[in-house]
Amino acid sequence: MVKLIALFRKPADPAAFDRAYFETHVPLVRQVPELRRVEVARITGAPRGEPEYYLMAAMYFDDRAAMDRAMASPENAAAGKNLMGFAKGLVTFMFAEEVGE
Amino acid sequence: MVKLIALFRKPADPAAFDRAYFETHVPLVRQVPELRRVEVARITGAPRGEPEYYLMAAMYFDDRAAMDRAMASPENAAAGKNLMGFAKGLVTFMFAEEVGE
Repeated sequence: MVKLIALFRKPADPAAFDRAYFETHVPLVRQVPELRRVEVARITGAPRGEPEYYLMAAMYFDDRAAMDRAMASPENAAAGKNLMGFAKGLVTFMFAEEVGE
Repeated sequence: MVKLIALFRKPADPAAFDRAYFETHVPLVRQVPELRRVEVARITGAPRGEPEYYLMAAMYFDDRAAMDRAMASPENAAAGKNLMGFAKGLVTFMFAEEVGE
């Protein structure tokens, strides 16, 4: 499995962010083709000091080719456009591949 | 489930980092009490530009109380001391809780 990870820094208005994220954005993400699973985790703290992030999402795909096709889809473009409406400057994306360790 | 997430920025010598991480550090992490699962993912890229991180690890626990006990254990102290020997300045930790979305 491969995944697209989104890390979000703390928004100025967390309640408004959460509404936009969970009520509008996640339903759009779920329409992205070949998406197998979405995991969202709230960041609740850090061992020392304040955590760098507020929320982390992982979107899972079967392999890199499937993720590339998904990234190029109109559904992903719509989800990205929606996200930029409320999370611009807060989000960092990266592609990841799980490894047996 | 709750998890401790570790994000690592790109090391100066990735091969040396990988040896230290997978051969020495992960075996110490596995000795931490109440740890249910470790997931390690290599960061393979980003939709735009260079990714901010090199590696992400997630250590899963049943609940926050179990994670707190694990963090306070001598096994975790040993793993942390080992980590600071090769990843100081590269690692960011945070606690997270998966949410139904």
